[in-house]
Amino acid sequence: MSGLKQQLMLRVENDLNDIEAALQQNLNPHVELVREVAGHLIFSGGKRIRPLLNMLCARLCGYTDEFIKKFSTIIEFLHTATLLHDDVVDEADLRRGKPVAHSIWGAPVTVLTGDFLLARALNIAAETGNPKIIRIISEITENMCQGEILQLIKKGDVNLSEADYMDVIRRKTGFLIQGACQTGAILAGAPEETENRLAQYGYHIGMVFQIADDLLDYTADTQTLGKTIGADLKEGKLTLPVIHTLEKSAAQDREWLEHLITGKKFSETEFDTLIGLMHNTGAIRYCQTIAETHVREAKQIIGSFAPCPTTETLIMIADYTLNRKA
Amino acid sequence: MSGLKQQLMLRVENDLNDIEAALQQNLNPHVELVREVAGHLIFSGGKRIRPLLNMLCARLCGYTDEFIKKFSTIIEFLHTATLLHDDVVDEADLRRGKPVAHSIWGAPVTVLTGDFLLARALNIAAETGNPKIIRIISEITENMCQGEILQLIKKGDVNLSEADYMDVIRRKTGFLIQGACQTGAILAGAPEETENRLAQYGYHIGMVFQIADDLLDYTADTQTLGKTIGADLKEGKLTLPVIHTLEKSAAQDREWLEHLITGKKFSETEFDTLIGLMHNTGAIRYCQTIAETHVREAKQIIGSFAPCPTTETLIMIADYTLNRKA
Repeated sequence: MSGLKQQLMLRVENDLNDIEAALQQNLNPHVELVREVAGHLIFSGGKRIRPLLNMLCARLCGYTDEFIKKFSTIIEFLHTATLLHDDVVDEADLRRGKPVAHSIWGAPVTVLTGDFLLARALNIAAETGNPKIIRIISEITENMCQGEILQLIKKGDVNLSEADYMDVIRRKTGFLIQGACQTGAILAGAPEETENRLAQYGYHIGMVFQIADDLLDYTADTQTLGKTIGADLKEGKLTLPVIHTLEKSAAQDREWLEHLITGKKFSETEFDTLIGLMHNTGAIRYCQTIAETHVREAKQIIGSFAPCPTTETLIMIADYTLNRKA
Repeated sequence: MSGLKQQLMLRVENDLNDIEAALQQNLNPHVELVREVAGHLIFSGGKRIRPLLNMLCARLCGYTDEFIKKFSTIIEFLHTATLLHDDVVDEADLRRGKPVAHSIWGAPVTVLTGDFLLARALNIAAETGNPKIIRIISEITENMCQGEILQLIKKGDVNLSEADYMDVIRRKTGFLIQGACQTGAILAGAPEETENRLAQYGYHIGMVFQIADDLLDYTADTQTLGKTIGADLKEGKLTLPVIHTLEKSAAQDREWLEHLITGKKFSETEFDTLIGLMHNTGAIRYCQTIAETHVREAKQIIGSFAPCPTTETLIMIADYTLNRKA
């Protein structure tokens, strides 16, 4: 574990334990199989960054009620629901180093368990009796599935622009993390200006989170990552490293890469050649720079709050999001 | 068209037109493909019984606001979302006489469009700012997917009891129609006692609706039904007519039927033999009696309201639900 991760983990240990307990308590299905299928993914060592951000933003705004534990599960349930559906959609085989749910229980049960989690999340949101919160939670879901659909439509499209990519990741990842931070502030009854600042912080964290994730597909190894490396490319899912490489490559290299993308399969040597090209065109560096800009923005926003242990943690999370290895 | 249906259609023509317009206006996706996929099913001639019940119950309780048009789309969106997911789950090929969405756009896009509709429904519910309504809407979804999962788990299980079956259909069909009626009353600010009566009415309508639907799979013809006849049995989905036939058959017939169920395929002659058995064991009659009891209960509840054109329509819907041919 890196020094930063270790330091961060020590700080948030109690919160993470609270989140784990709340997830167990609030899953609460009538059908035992739903607990099994949902639990398979929920309790497979997720990082809980999303519910944690929700908790921390509420705390930063002075919220002390125990309800935050239950509330934060909304964010993890939404996240898990989309992972379940995404794995069906992507026909993935590994998630967090384990076989995906649909390879064990089949697509139908997996889809329906995802539906249950979406509904469970919105049911807990309804408990707040706060229409703004409920609205944000349902809009997160609207955006997440539309982001996924956009991504599906654009699969294998070598003309996908950086702007298209940013739109997709904002919807599929940004909105959830933004919403986690924003609803924490709303729950605490923070003034709208504060709420907006934390929403912005969440937006930047979301963007760096996804960009870093997409980069890891080309820079990590399968064991560390817990999923198959190069999987995005095999599916024809074009992410920022590839988009930038396509843009900056010489005609011949671009043609080779387009062929690789269209073919949907490649040897290890070809994959290594691609990684080399990504370095030579500056694509890896470019992605890092974009991500760093979001980290800087996120930290600047937190810098506008009076310093306290919670602001320190939120700043560490911003750094961790970029530097994580899996 | 039967006399009853024609009479009913004349009465609710304006409401149905309002519902159609509201569905068009409130689908409102960012991604055009979502409109296409959702629209394929939403605008394929659904009966709109569910949003209509919502509208009528609100009206019966004195609600006159235009918002009911938008609100009623929640019910149809939820219904459509589950149909999209169910068709993926059931691997069906026809719905309302048209190829199902996933056979045109593939399962991934279909699943995600279903998610969008769930979120859209909850987003509109959030607009009411009424936590009770939001809670009911999210609980409908929790129950619908758990009902579907229960049904999946029990597929091909020749020991499925009538109680198990009732639990499944209450969750997958009953809760939505009950919720449609109940939220109509809540929106109108009706006293809790009135709200409960209309919820009960909806419950009975939901039960008769599903029992009649399951019966049609053995009594209608493919063209009228708009989907393949005997489809339930081919999937191993045991519904009340089969459960009762199994229960009342002589040992030899039961063994034959169990074999048919396990085999999942049958000739036309075998299917005709089954229909004969259903009549001889009184299973068809039994299902009709159960359904009639629910119709009677539903009508009795409406009879407790002061008679008006809306109570008349609600009574006609109770009769129509049982007597429909598709």
